[in-house]
Amino acid sequence: MSELELKAEKLDGADALASKRDEFVLDDVVYLDGNSLGALPVSVPGRVEDVVRRQWGELRIRSWTEGGWWTAPERIGDRIAPLVGAAPGQVVVGDSTSVNVFKALVGAVRLARSADTGRDEIVVDATTFPTDGYIAGSAARMTGCTLRPVPPSEVPAALGDRTAAVLLNHVDYRTGRLHDLPSLTAAVHAAGARVVWDLCHSAGALPVGLDEHGVDLAVGCTYKYLNGGPGSPAFLYVREDLQDRFDSPLPGWNSHAEPFGMREEYEPAAGAVRGRVGTPDILSMLALEAALEVWDGVCVDTVRAKSLALTDFFLECVEAYVPGDRVECVTPRAHAERGSQVALRCPDAGEVMRRLIARGVVGDFRHPDVLRFGFTPLYVGFADVERAARVLAEELAAEAARGGPGPDPYGGAGSRAR
Amino acid sequence: MSELELKAEKLDGADALASKRDEFVLDDVVYLDGNSLGALPVSVPGRVEDVVRRQWGELRIRSWTEGGWWTAPERIGDRIAPLVGAAPGQVVVGDSTSVNVFKALVGAVRLARSADTGRDEIVVDATTFPTDGYIAGSAARMTGCTLRPVPPSEVPAALGDRTAAVLLNHVDYRTGRLHDLPSLTAAVHAAGARVVWDLCHSAGALPVGLDEHGVDLAVGCTYKYLNGGPGSPAFLYVREDLQDRFDSPLPGWNSHAEPFGMREEYEPAAGAVRGRVGTPDILSMLALEAALEVWDGVCVDTVRAKSLALTDFFLECVEAYVPGDRVECVTPRAHAERGSQVALRCPDAGEVMRRLIARGVVGDFRHPDVLRFGFTPLYVGFADVERAARVLAEELAAEAARGGPGPDPYGGAGSRAR
Repeated sequence: MSELELKAEKLDGADALASKRDEFVLDDVVYLDGNSLGALPVSVPGRVEDVVRRQWGELRIRSWTEGGWWTAPERIGDRIAPLVGAAPGQVVVGDSTSVNVFKALVGAVRLARSADTGRDEIVVDATTFPTDGYIAGSAARMTGCTLRPVPPSEVPAALGDRTAAVLLNHVDYRTGRLHDLPSLTAAVHAAGARVVWDLCHSAGALPVGLDEHGVDLAVGCTYKYLNGGPGSPAFLYVREDLQDRFDSPLPGWNSHAEPFGMREEYEPAAGAVRGRVGTPDILSMLALEAALEVWDGVCVDTVRAKSLALTDFFLECVEAYVPGDRVECVTPRAHAERGSQVALRCPDAGEVMRRLIARGVVGDFRHPDVLRFGFTPLYVGFADVERAARVLAEELAAEAARGGPGPDPYGGAGSRAR
Repeated sequence: MSELELKAEKLDGADALASKRDEFVLDDVVYLDGNSLGALPVSVPGRVEDVVRRQWGELRIRSWTEGGWWTAPERIGDRIAPLVGAAPGQVVVGDSTSVNVFKALVGAVRLARSADTGRDEIVVDATTFPTDGYIAGSAARMTGCTLRPVPPSEVPAALGDRTAAVLLNHVDYRTGRLHDLPSLTAAVHAAGARVVWDLCHSAGALPVGLDEHGVDLAVGCTYKYLNGGPGSPAFLYVREDLQDRFDSPLPGWNSHAEPFGMREEYEPAAGAVRGRVGTPDILSMLALEAALEVWDGVCVDTVRAKSLALTDFFLECVEAYVPGDRVECVTPRAHAERGSQVALRCPDAGEVMRRLIARGVVGDFRHPDVLRFGFTPLYVGFADVERAARVLAEELAAEAARGGPGPDPYGGAGSRAR
């Protein structure tokens, strides 16, 4: 057994979260793609079967009240809230991340303008996952703002009297860089603007502290580190003291103060419920609710500590195993700047990832040249990490021995999904 | 056996769709609430279990390509298309009805303005299900239009040079009135405007003829007559020749020409895919796909013929059994003006419906005084209809004998959901 294998064994032996792995359906694959689609929690299949066969099949329409379907968006929001540092009553689940970005960003512009009508600029993270940029473009167009893409580090200098709202990613989807939420939030507020944080790559991976840092609005997805299942509904956070002024561009009947009153006039509900739109997708939503049970008794600080230990150890193994010039780490080394993934730039990254997947090490490829490895502390162990780095080194060595990339034996396009 | 019971037996014996009932999970309840939540098709539970345990649990991220997850919105759209009279490539599934109303209506305004920039009015059905009106209000506000609520019968006279778009319901959710889609569509077009039809209460219940009648855009839900399950995703129809000009207000990454290119610039995809937004909710969506299998070999004209026979027979039974002054039918008698439900105005409708439900006749109550009975031809039979009318008459007679409404023995608020 090598020195690093021994170290992995020791780290696994001391891992306070090790037993959590049994709460997931896993096989002998090293699954480092939980930042794209989290693994299946053991509690989900039985719950979904109950929702389908009994709640829908037998109780049918009665489940809207008796089965708790109607209140699921806010109930599940309250289950997510502590994971992102929010007190109850501020998070609501439903719709996709993209749709929630639209609600939050238009809402943020309207909040900013309620205090200062002259604000007409939306600043967006220039390195953002594309959908946020596209939706921000639409939000700008529909609110009469201009859109200004700015790298996160340059945001403070870009803020001014015209800034209405700023849309930022907590963790960069490609590099894994963690942005400084407290200081950027404070800078946006100092400029008199409102901030929307996209937590897709941080919720469930590290402490967010929405309430503590006075974030205005936030959105996030639930199918990565929250393991809600493919396309499970996203969440929207609206800070409590802003809720009565939150003016949604999607005022569907589910956000009405009296949704079954069938009123012609729209009167928004109080609270986070104001962020709801149409009828919630119950199957996906209640699967998420079951998935969230794995968080019982788990402290996000413990998750963060293990996440950093995992990525530290991965970087150590990569340095030890992989020839120096074959990959370049684009994820920051500083803990304060690192999310829960490691991104390695590598020629032929698409081909390399296909070979890794064929050998049971599942990460993903991000255009044009990034190998992305996500580390989900609830079910990834240190032996997994050592194996992943070792297989990566072996495949890179084999490729070098062949004199470059060989033919593509799989013909696929790599994994798909954010 | 009474004369009407004999007639029911005869009608059931001649029912070409009678065997379809076996494809649903039903019990001895008379389920007349399929216009709110369709019954569970037998094919769904096994499919959902496969999606959860194998596709998510075992294949995980690979299912996005190998499991057909990525293309589900357009594939399932093509399965719905023939049910609403659309050729392939024009329907995409995803998001809620409310969100799709927003996409369609803003898209319609933009289409109208691309030909005539002076159009600044949105006409909306004054009797609409509320969410359409609320969303239309937001669409108007965000496109600089005024919103004008008009009863459908008065729409032709209300159209003019300023009309940009018209949002209409094919079937009124409360009264069950079927509006004249061909003539109203023609009138909107004659005025140079674009029309959006909401098919929530007609898709799967009667022929719609979207292509035949030149409808511009349409939306509809899938959890009523299409039996997709609670909150199953809605659909959006964009007529083929308008697709390259369809300018969505929700341009999420799923609608990009190259979604995995991760481009900073938005370039919309060709085809119905342009109506997609974010990551699709796979569990709810694939449950819907399984549910749609009950339509194999079913002709919508046959469904319509049975639907009219069911509602005719219900009206006949109600007239025979119920004392004349206790209920007032607000659903039109003319076949050309009737959807697939019967709405009866009745004092104490909420209380009466609770009593019916307690006796195994499930319809729903719509504020303030409507008993609503939906007739799903795939699983409702004529004996069900006779029993529903008989139980209704018995409960109204019992109430009259008590001298009016008694105490509420159930304490609930009736069924909830559109």
